[in-house]
Amino acid sequence: MLRQASTTLSIRASRAGLHEFTDDVQHFVADSGIREGLLTLFCRHTSASLIIQENAAPAARHDLEAYFERIAPEGAGYEHDDEGPDDMPAHLRTALTATQLSIPVKDRRPALGTWQGIFLFEHRRNTPERQIALHLIGE
Amino acid sequence: MLRQASTTLSIRASRAGLHEFTDDVQHFVADSGIREGLLTLFCRHTSASLIIQENAAPAARHDLEAYFERIAPEGAGYEHDDEGPDDMPAHLRTALTATQLSIPVKDRRPALGTWQGIFLFEHRRNTPERQIALHLIGE
Amino acid sequence: MLRQASTTLSIRASRAGLHEFTDDVQHFVADSGIREGLLTLFCRHTSASLIIQENAAPAARHDLEAYFERIAPEGAGYEHDDEGPDDMPAHLRTALTATQLSIPVKDRRPALGTWQGIFLFEHRRNTPERQIALHLIGE
Repeated sequence: MLRQASTTLSIRASRAGLHEFTDDVQHFVADSGIREGLLTLFCRHTSASLIIQENAAPAARHDLEAYFERIAPEGAGYEHDDEGPDDMPAHLRTALTATQLSIPVKDRRPALGTWQGIFLFEHRRNTPERQIALHLIGE
Repeated sequence: MLRQASTTLSIRASRAGLHEFTDDVQHFVADSGIREGLLTLFCRHTSASLIIQENAAPAARHDLEAYFERIAPEGAGYEHDDEGPDDMPAHLRTALTATQLSIPVKDRRPALGTWQGIFLFEHRRNTPERQIALHLIGE
Repeated sequence: MLRQASTTLSIRASRAGLHEFTDDVQHFVADSGIREGLLTLFCRHTSASLIIQENAAPAARHDLEAYFERIAPEGAGYEHDDEGPDDMPAHLRTALTATQLSIPVKDRRPALGTWQGIFLFEHRRNTPERQIALHLIGE
């Protein structure tokens, strides 16, 4: 019998950059009792985003963070800087990555590949608490 | 009892750039009678895209538009220009943003954050009418 | 009566770049017997991605491939290069495009626009076999 489950995760990164929370997501799915279905994660912010990336190599995370600092840099003459120099780059880096991810669920687990982890990509230096809405439908 | 609702919105931006249509989406959800579920928006084009961004500060929109004009510029020696100089940049800006967005629905509303609005990102100057397919599943 | 269907497609591109597999997706939807619903595609890798793009003009594909080679180039002094010079650019190009796509289904077909095709965007030169998880819910 198809049914739904939902929750909101509150996550605070320790610093700007990639913050993995795959385990929190897997716990939600396992606790739901739903075996097969579709999981959706939605980041309720415009200055932080979601990304699925390499979960093993810290060097890959450093390169990824450095890359987005380079292609959407601070101090590029933005009109909008109400909240400081990391304000507009945060919006741009959010636009270039993902606000939402959906992942099929098989055998009570998100069907991630071997090397895939789910990350919050925090783009602000003051690392506010972020809300990630989770929705699961299946049976 | 889980069920589905769907529609297609026809939207025409007044100029290239960000065009908010959060209200149209909220009306569809409210009218569906579905209280909790998952909403999906799908842009049926390759030269316009979807983006969730800051809904309050016009300066942030200007910076966002200027940024994409800069990183995927016109006149960069593209092979493909059947429809003019804004043709290929439109495909590139679409690839860098989103063709599809899914948003959990709670209490008859998309669970957007306080500062999040839903925008069509029109990349063509002649601003053709665009079709956004909406799908909602829930109960 | 709402129900689910799922499968995993194994796809191997003949070379790095865009590889269309719209037909495989349409066959899965048609064979499922589900008429109206929501289709989700999920790429189980961090060095290949999904993209919906122009399905008619080869020149647009060439420009798209050349663009991502330019904005996320090889040899840019990356820390992570365990698997060679195309390793880290592959992760960056994946981050800039999509790991997942959801498409509403109408009349037994994904509701793609006239010019939209579904592509695997292979970012590695050795073109490993890729797994794309497909999930469909509807009735």
